[in-house]
Amino acid sequence: MHSYRKELLFNIPTRRAFLNITPQIEECLRDSGIREGLCLVNAMHITASVFINDDESGLHHDYEAWLEKLAPHEPVSSYQHNRTGEDNADAHMKRQLMGREVVVAITDGKLDFGPWEQVFYGEFDGGRRKRVLVKIIGE
Amino acid sequence: MHSYRKELLFNIPTRRAFLNITPQIEECLRDSGIREGLCLVNAMHITASVFINDDESGLHHDYEAWLEKLAPHEPVSSYQHNRTGEDNADAHMKRQLMGREVVVAITDGKLDFGPWEQVFYGEFDGGRRKRVLVKIIGE
Amino acid sequence: MHSYRKELLFNIPTRRAFLNITPQIEECLRDSGIREGLCLVNAMHITASVFINDDESGLHHDYEAWLEKLAPHEPVSSYQHNRTGEDNADAHMKRQLMGREVVVAITDGKLDFGPWEQVFYGEFDGGRRKRVLVKIIGE
Repeated sequence: MHSYRKELLFNIPTRRAFLNITPQIEECLRDSGIREGLCLVNAMHITASVFINDDESGLHHDYEAWLEKLAPHEPVSSYQHNRTGEDNADAHMKRQLMGREVVVAITDGKLDFGPWEQVFYGEFDGGRRKRVLVKIIGE
Repeated sequence: MHSYRKELLFNIPTRRAFLNITPQIEECLRDSGIREGLCLVNAMHITASVFINDDESGLHHDYEAWLEKLAPHEPVSSYQHNRTGEDNADAHMKRQLMGREVVVAITDGKLDFGPWEQVFYGEFDGGRRKRVLVKIIGE
Repeated sequence: MHSYRKELLFNIPTRRAFLNITPQIEECLRDSGIREGLCLVNAMHITASVFINDDESGLHHDYEAWLEKLAPHEPVSSYQHNRTGEDNADAHMKRQLMGREVVVAITDGKLDFGPWEQVFYGEFDGGRRKRVLVKIIGE
């Protein structure tokens, strides 16, 4: 069994954004040389997500509006977590809705994806340096 | 390390449905011959889910009503994604709530489950040919 | 490839609670002797979650209030599942929002975590004996 590890670095200037990181994951997979196995991609920070969905800007707009409806940023004072001096409690909720991680099958040296699957980094509390972990195990 | 891959095919006639796919996953596991490892089961489409919960029809009715409340199908025009000609934006939200994938431990040649755990395919935009990927690695 | 399996046991006296189980997972990892691989931690019960977030009591209070808003316990009779004699339909919803499982990278014999990542057991229907499965594969 072989293993590969890499951190991807992000510093998103806006509070919230969705970033297609599929090319970076594919590059990691090529570097790893692994042909059969599993690839874990996870946010290393707890106000960010890694998820798989469609690379369509209208959908991303809809996700943004929907997440804000289910876990609104305002009023900031409605969250006890924000008494710690943060204003990002909503980001901890949004991250749970979109998820921390994805596990992707590696088959014949490729990400084993359906026709529209793309990997996204979801930032819900930007303006900070953040990391995503890519860990691949296999042969 | 051994690996096994299979695609399960679905074409659900209704827009939404929950289907217990545990028997198919168990058959994959038998075919693989793997006794110890991990089994990834993921929707290959972005308006469908794979999740683990209870095989109880009342609960499935409740999930359907709850998902429709948190991410309503109507009004279709309220979603920017639907300007692409689709009417399935809500399905992309419902899929995030229920999840893309599950990872199941394989122990002694069996799905290592608690007493009520069953694997479901969740369809949120049916009437199309869809696939689920089963990937097992181990020994 | 080596594999390791352990069940963690819980019997939470209250209906709902969040419990930091990171120390138990670290102990499992030490016992396993595995230095590189993947660690799956999943609830074996379908009204409980395993998730990764921040160990901050204000945030946990916010999660509790937020989950109750998105999937209220009352009225119990509003859920068909509760006609089976249970009163825990809401717990099945809350568990989907927070997730069944996490997969954690193992690097150099350690849980490969960002600065604030901690593993939690989320109980949504306590007063029963419940289990969490820890499965580690690697070398």
